Amino acid sequence: MNAEIIAVGSELLLGQIVNTNARFLSQQLAELGVNVYFHTVVGDNPDRLKQALTNAEARADIILLTGGLGPTKDDLTKETIAKHLNTKLVMNPFALHSIEQFFARTRRIMTDNNKKQALVLENCHVLQNDNGMAPGMLYKQNEKIYILLPGPPKEMEPMFMTYGRQTLLKQLDTNEEIISRVLRFFGIGEAALETEIEDLIDSQTNPTIAPLASDGEVTLRLTAKHPDKNEAISLIDDVEKKIRSRVGQFFYGYDTTSLMDEAFSSLKTKGLTIACAESLTGGKFQEQFTAIPGAGDLLKGGIVCYSNEVKMDLLDINPLTIEQVGAVSEECARDLAINVANKLNSNIGISFTGVAGPSESEGKPVGTVYIGIYLKGNEPIVEKVELAGSREAIRTRAVKFGCHFLKQYLTNAQVEQS
Amino acid sequence: MNAEIIAVGSELLLGQIVNTNARFLSQQLAELGVNVYFHTVVGDNPDRLKQALTNAEARADIILLTGGLGPTKDDLTKETIAKHLNTKLVMNPFALHSIEQFFARTRRIMTDNNKKQALVLENCHVLQNDNGMAPGMLYKQNEKIYILLPGPPKEMEPMFMTYGRQTLLKQLDTNEEIISRVLRFFGIGEAALETEIEDLIDSQTNPTIAPLASDGEVTLRLTAKHPDKNEAISLIDDVEKKIRSRVGQFFYGYDTTSLMDEAFSSLKTKGLTIACAESLTGGKFQEQFTAIPGAGDLLKGGIVCYSNEVKMDLLDINPLTIEQVGAVSEECARDLAINVANKLNSNIGISFTGVAGPSESEGKPVGTVYIGIYLKGNEPIVEKVELAGSREAIRTRAVKFGCHFLKQYLTNAQVEQS
Repeated sequence: MNAEIIAVGSELLLGQIVNTNARFLSQQLAELGVNVYFHTVVGDNPDRLKQALTNAEARADIILLTGGLGPTKDDLTKETIAKHLNTKLVMNPFALHSIEQFFARTRRIMTDNNKKQALVLENCHVLQNDNGMAPGMLYKQNEKIYILLPGPPKEMEPMFMTYGRQTLLKQLDTNEEIISRVLRFFGIGEAALETEIEDLIDSQTNPTIAPLASDGEVTLRLTAKHPDKNEAISLIDDVEKKIRSRVGQFFYGYDTTSLMDEAFSSLKTKGLTIACAESLTGGKFQEQFTAIPGAGDLLKGGIVCYSNEVKMDLLDINPLTIEQVGAVSEECARDLAINVANKLNSNIGISFTGVAGPSESEGKPVGTVYIGIYLKGNEPIVEKVELAGSREAIRTRAVKFGCHFLKQYLTNAQVEQS
Repeated sequence: MNAEIIAVGSELLLGQIVNTNARFLSQQLAELGVNVYFHTVVGDNPDRLKQALTNAEARADIILLTGGLGPTKDDLTKETIAKHLNTKLVMNPFALHSIEQFFARTRRIMTDNNKKQALVLENCHVLQNDNGMAPGMLYKQNEKIYILLPGPPKEMEPMFMTYGRQTLLKQLDTNEEIISRVLRFFGIGEAALETEIEDLIDSQTNPTIAPLASDGEVTLRLTAKHPDKNEAISLIDDVEKKIRSRVGQFFYGYDTTSLMDEAFSSLKTKGLTIACAESLTGGKFQEQFTAIPGAGDLLKGGIVCYSNEVKMDLLDINPLTIEQVGAVSEECARDLAINVANKLNSNIGISFTGVAGPSESEGKPVGTVYIGIYLKGNEPIVEKVELAGSREAIRTRAVKFGCHFLKQYLTNAQVEQS
């Protein structure tokens, strides 16, 4: 089976957005063992979309379309396909109900063109949209499979993962199981990691090993095929073992976990609460922490001590510390961690202070970061890291290092269950 | 003139990288007044690349190709084009010299396959590569223009800007200026906005009006063409005026600005400092605020009052308020805004409290949000909004609403310069 991905939207042809949907779907299809031979992008134009469909039908079994399912006149994907395949659109009552509910809940007035979003191809499988209004569709005709997905990645990706993938798999009728596992590493660069396991990457065909670097992390995706699922898993287990015997000290988790998820779990497992003093990171640690449901049980809260005034007034930092060694210092990080835990009555305090740039501060270069961690009844620790990159990259990586050190600290610390 | 962009590379079809080259070239071509009707991505496969070329020749005047110019066996773009157009490749002595120099400089051994990179289509314009080894090409045959560019964006982008753009412009023989302006709106949905200006969108051809929605915002891109740049600008001015006379109350800025940038500017203009009490948003407002260089002059800091304990202990929320109306309430939002401004000694206090989900809280449904704003010497205000979507969408939009209300409040409030 092979597939073609057609993205519909003039904003792509104007260069206003990048076609990340094609990338996402390509990765997913590769995992399902489906070859992708072409991506096409076409504008909001029925004639050219028909052209693209005709080309795709001549060379692909599965045609995935993203975009053009919205309420406006520009949105014409399903209308064009309906005409092209000589079928019709019918109102889907569930989709309509969910659109009406959306407007009722947000107290906005529902205009008539919003109803158009609930129209679907007759006899299609409807793919529910949990993050927006336009439903997706899987439709079969003349041995071809058409999958229509919304354009916004926030809607498309979860729709495909939750409903599209399974619905497609049922159609594929393959007897091979394809199993993927992502190993996540932090604290080692892509080139260095690849050098360590170069021979494995070169010699492995089942599972394959695909490295990818982003945002200071490196992942390895292991993908195995086998008619027997357990055999596929065991093939992956073997290679994982080899890899971790070489670079295991940098491994931190599987698949879609994050350093924050891991730190969160460590706290939860040990039944510890946390409070946070953020200077450099301006709230980023807590923002990411509170993105996880259940954060309220672990995070008391924190203080964004962006000004030295707030560090002194609210977090009792000694003015002499600021004067003598500065806010970007081991001493300040340590006291912030201790004092925020005491003030907010949490088990743990964590602090971030540093220079995000664009210019140096207190004579310390951009990228200097101190992270303090304190667990009541234990010695506080302060870790210094020196980070490169933009203001945003430095702040992002500082939070990652914070999570990394926190997890490490909790693994090592003697914790009395609270 | 219209163009098609063909990216060559199996790594794109496997989803290992995103096709940012297509976006970059689309933006550049839009500015040059060249319409782009299709993007195509094809793997490292001569037959399928020929197919893509044949399709593109049938519908485009200019065909831009990225990728496949490197030294390895996979790299076959120019070889395939040479066969397809029945022409030949010749060694380019300047390119060869620069490749030899590169190896001498980096003290690496030059293997024979590297010479292949200096081969170019006979009689083409060579585009010099200042950031890598493979030269680009512009080649004309049968009234079609072929532009071959390297795949890595770090090589492709500067090559196009420094050499490709000018070489192409000479072929275009255009005398038209193309001007674009993006209008940004908040607080109105895409469908509702389009309904308001439907007749304008339908009747306008110069400038064109292209709507785009993302993350609760809607943008309109106005693009005008005219031999005289000032005339093009004035065409845009006229349409902007018409649009804003209808939906001006939702307009907040131009081009790449954000609601946070606008709120930041308003504070800066009025010389006001701010402090923030974040429950629902967990630090997100401050995190975004501090992403802007210079935030330290305006933001004193804030308190992430995720637990009611912190609301009471650090922000003096009356326990009776929590007991009687709850933390998600007008009263609590108001007192948080007032108290955080007083505690942190700022001119302004802003607060966020609400239910992010996944489940309801205090009997209030997911998406209920209260935002408090207080400017010392003025009456505090509290705005209630009801937001739909995921936990993350609710938090993101709450911050956007916070910025929106803050800017509005500052516009209306009597501010005594501090």
